[in-house]
Amino acid sequence: MQDRIRNAALRDRIVSAAEAAALIQDGMVVGMSGFTRAGEAMAVPLALAERARSHPLKITLMTGASLGHDLDKILAETQVTARRLPFQSDPALRRAINAGEVMFIDQHLSETVEQLRTRQLPAPDIAVIEATAITAEGGIIPTTSVGNSASFAILAKKVIVEINSAHPLSFEGMHDIFIPTYRPNRMPIPVVTPDSRIGLPYIPIPPEKIAAIVMTYKSDSAASIASPDEDTVAIANHLIDFLSHEVKMGRMDNRLVPLQAGIGSIANAVLHGLIESPFHDLRMYSEVLQDSTFDLIDAGKLTFASGSSITLSAAHSRRIMQDFDRYKPHLMLRPQEISNHPEVVRRLGLIAINTALEFDIYGNVNSTHVMGTQMMNGIGGSGDFARNALLSVFVTKSVAKGGAISSVVPMVSHVDHTEHDVDILVTETGLADLRGLAPRERARIIIRNCAHPDWQSSLQDYYDRACAFGGHTPHILEEAFSWHIRLRKTGRM
Amino acid sequence: MQDRIRNAALRDRIVSAAEAAALIQDGMVVGMSGFTRAGEAMAVPLALAERARSHPLKITLMTGASLGHDLDKILAETQVTARRLPFQSDPALRRAINAGEVMFIDQHLSETVEQLRTRQLPAPDIAVIEATAITAEGGIIPTTSVGNSASFAILAKKVIVEINSAHPLSFEGMHDIFIPTYRPNRMPIPVVTPDSRIGLPYIPIPPEKIAAIVMTYKSDSAASIASPDEDTVAIANHLIDFLSHEVKMGRMDNRLVPLQAGIGSIANAVLHGLIESPFHDLRMYSEVLQDSTFDLIDAGKLTFASGSSITLSAAHSRRIMQDFDRYKPHLMLRPQEISNHPEVVRRLGLIAINTALEFDIYGNVNSTHVMGTQMMNGIGGSGDFARNALLSVFVTKSVAKGGAISSVVPMVSHVDHTEHDVDILVTETGLADLRGLAPRERARIIIRNCAHPDWQSSLQDYYDRACAFGGHTPHILEEAFSWHIRLRKTGRM
Repeated sequence: MQDRIRNAALRDRIVSAAEAAALIQDGMVVGMSGFTRAGEAMAVPLALAERARSHPLKITLMTGASLGHDLDKILAETQVTARRLPFQSDPALRRAINAGEVMFIDQHLSETVEQLRTRQLPAPDIAVIEATAITAEGGIIPTTSVGNSASFAILAKKVIVEINSAHPLSFEGMHDIFIPTYRPNRMPIPVVTPDSRIGLPYIPIPPEKIAAIVMTYKSDSAASIASPDEDTVAIANHLIDFLSHEVKMGRMDNRLVPLQAGIGSIANAVLHGLIESPFHDLRMYSEVLQDSTFDLIDAGKLTFASGSSITLSAAHSRRIMQDFDRYKPHLMLRPQEISNHPEVVRRLGLIAINTALEFDIYGNVNSTHVMGTQMMNGIGGSGDFARNALLSVFVTKSVAKGGAISSVVPMVSHVDHTEHDVDILVTETGLADLRGLAPRERARIIIRNCAHPDWQSSLQDYYDRACAFGGHTPHILEEAFSWHIRLRKTGRM
Repeated sequence: MQDRIRNAALRDRIVSAAEAAALIQDGMVVGMSGFTRAGEAMAVPLALAERARSHPLKITLMTGASLGHDLDKILAETQVTARRLPFQSDPALRRAINAGEVMFIDQHLSETVEQLRTRQLPAPDIAVIEATAITAEGGIIPTTSVGNSASFAILAKKVIVEINSAHPLSFEGMHDIFIPTYRPNRMPIPVVTPDSRIGLPYIPIPPEKIAAIVMTYKSDSAASIASPDEDTVAIANHLIDFLSHEVKMGRMDNRLVPLQAGIGSIANAVLHGLIESPFHDLRMYSEVLQDSTFDLIDAGKLTFASGSSITLSAAHSRRIMQDFDRYKPHLMLRPQEISNHPEVVRRLGLIAINTALEFDIYGNVNSTHVMGTQMMNGIGGSGDFARNALLSVFVTKSVAKGGAISSVVPMVSHVDHTEHDVDILVTETGLADLRGLAPRERARIIIRNCAHPDWQSSLQDYYDRACAFGGHTPHILEEAFSWHIRLRKTGRM
């Protein structure tokens, strides 16, 4: 206890989860820790949901990104969540969002706290933050994610801290908490390499703002990352061949430039592929650090990884947490505003690898909306990285649903990343290098290199007929979504 | 002559425009000065076009942005331009682009030189730069634009300088030429206020790279800005009312935050509207400085304006150039990489005001493609600013072609700015504040506030029926482009 709450006066504020949850009132804006199912407070939201079963209430729920432990499911099913931002990945919440029952504000992950700070979004009434410990000064040491926790705690009127003693005290020192000076008098953000330390190892708030402390013991939800398969290995190999060519052309050296990779199985497989690559002394400047990050460290390939969260499979989690001191010198967790900051992303010159839901023959990418209408998870940090990266790469398998759906379509049904922000597209069939190409040139190379053979001739046919209509970006508006419409009607594009 | 070419050894390199143009060979990449029809070299490109009439040749032409003096028309008609980037605004070139005869690479204006520097685009073989003078060290003092001239001159093997003595020598000192350190060892860009001076007053290149000097005397092309009309005045008034409300809410003070405004009549009218506003001590951090910038300085409303070019109407140009020393302390011209840099835009926290071609009921903006296929001018700097601004505003009249076309549509036919990057939409009918709203909430307010009364009920009908299909962003894919298709078939949406 003395280790976990080092400010003796604060120990009086330990209460039950239900007592802490009682501070949250109907209509409040609540900022909770949690990013990619890591480091979320659990006891208080569960107690809140429990209370809502008998005494309904609604809140606006802000987090870093997705929550673990089915919290988004439980809070959606108990109808506690009325508004949600800036990201989610839960099937039950997704259903409520797509039914128009929950208002979801899908944001670039670096931007939420900017809008809070300028009061363009309402400040949180209460922040609920999971912590490893509280320092003697009242500083909050986060756990496996930083996300938006620091700004939530600073901007909220009251803070509830969940001390989770399942996390090792050696997490202390892994975090780098930096809050930009407020505009209009902001100075540069001084990150100049992935391992630049620019802030404090804890979230600095006045101890009197800590209204309640709840003691917990729980592990993070395990990530369910599919193992690399034939297709994801092929995607990884195409990308590694391409990067080898970039090195040969003298555009970067064998250390490459710092890497960012989005969450999910494909990006994880691509990083995994780097273990057997000719590259060395790699660095990451990313938002989520997954299994592959630690495998690359183990393989001696990766020297440093900066992120906003650590999200691991059960097996990796057991192994890494037991041996955490060995990994710690290679790791740093930052607020998502800094891990994703356009200023830093542009300065460092990243290779950004993110997953597309579908892309079109001109290089526009849909990351969020199935059939142009149904939200999956949200844009997340992909836009923060893709816009400002040195190389913006999007990856996906060329087909889905056993071949019924082509991931390469005439026109994407929703645009998250425009043609201006996409340099490289990769599927298991090949890689399209779009740099310096006009739309008509892009179409030819995307269809040839990235489309599945089953769909190539139909795409080529669409493109050829569209060219007869003319235009810088030829399209036949009558048919642009015909593939999606056919899928809805027949189950196949 | 001694004033204009202060390095005596360079005076031997004065040649005719035809002799200089002879340095440009078939297949070369040529980087020319010029941004928003200001500061372009003219004599050499005209000589090149003349030569091409008898001896055809093709080049890749890179500039800052658009060229004046019909150069893009002449170079397109003589088929000299095979590839063109990153922006253009000429009807003849536009026709060639839309016919697929010229390959046009439409880029965020801050990004071209990043891609050149990392050799992701081929470096210019020759740069052709208009100058006020050449310093004793061989430094090039630009004229009314900086654009990409500095990086073109630094990266090209040879440089042709056109000394235009129609520009006053007092331009010297107005420019601030800063080139970021090369990645991976880049330091922060030290602009912290619009008037931060961080570079040199000239483009520093070794004098031996100057292969030819051509003496010219010409004025910039005059901007043809339509005078404010009833609609643009209404747009300005809606925006000023909104900004007054922001001040009242304590989100900014009466000096506002630094302003950016895109090129064109509507943005110009909005800035003009600020003359009669309650705001004072305004600052601009923009890309093009138009008539309204100088009117605001004259009115004592604007203290400083940073841009990448000055583009004036004929009347304003006469008046301002005669009295340039009075304006000079209030002005600075920077490379477009710096005027538009995401790092600086985010740090300063701008109000970015740009023009939409059309926007949809969910807040996606089309800035470039008529009917989803025909390129107008290009995205220009609008994405650099909109993505990172404190407030991202898009303006347009609610209808075009005498009411036959609604600027508010069910789904935009091309996306340049996604829903994530658009805070405020304004037409003459009203303003929609989209901050913190989910798509369904945005649709209601956009239809109510921004659509023309003639089109409101049709939009509402589409939205209501789309909601029956469900989804986070309700759409009926069969009808999403029906308004555009009807326009093509009947001349009316």
